Amino acid sequence: MYAVIFRAKPGIQDSEYGRTVTRMRELAFEKYGCLDFISATEGEGEQEVTISYWPNAQAISAWKSDAEHTLAQETGRAKWYDSYIVQVVEIKREYKFNS
Amino acid sequence: MYAVIFRAKPGIQDSEYGRTVTRMRELAFEKYGCLDFISATEGEGEQEVTISYWPNAQAISAWKSDAEHTLAQETGRAKWYDSYIVQVVEIKREYKFNS
Repeated sequence: MYAVIFRAKPGIQDSEYGRTVTRMRELAFEKYGCLDFISATEGEGEQEVTISYWPNAQAISAWKSDAEHTLAQETGRAKWYDSYIVQVVEIKREYKFNS
Repeated sequence: MYAVIFRAKPGIQDSEYGRTVTRMRELAFEKYGCLDFISATEGEGEQEVTISYWPNAQAISAWKSDAEHTLAQETGRAKWYDSYIVQVVEIKREYKFNS
């Protein structure tokens, strides 16, 4: 299994931003086989952390080059994010605990 | 580079919890060569997401079996966490953007 870690410092996040996030998540699950998607915020909102999970590296490449997603990435760089880092990772081991 | 994704649903987090988190972070950096450590919260605190970064898989194994850390893991399962998942991942590709 693969994952994408997306860490971003917010820029100007308008109402179009919220709509786009919802649409991107929907697209990732419905069209590209995304397995899980979690979003969290560091401290007082200084950094957003999103982790999405994928069956393989090919699914991530297809998702990255999707036309709607490409447009969203461009708007993200122009407006919504001051900076970000994307890390494509392979899951090597996993441990679970349930009380 | 490797990373550890730690996702947890909080249990009973007392003052010992806060002290232990600070100490574990310090130990990871000073004794085991941890490169970066970020903590974020999903929604209204339903889930904590911590990502730590490491030079290689060996550093993570050494960190996992540290005596103080082993004790912290035990207390975590007994009290501080209802459930958690630990994912050891290898970073395959990385993209950065700065406006």
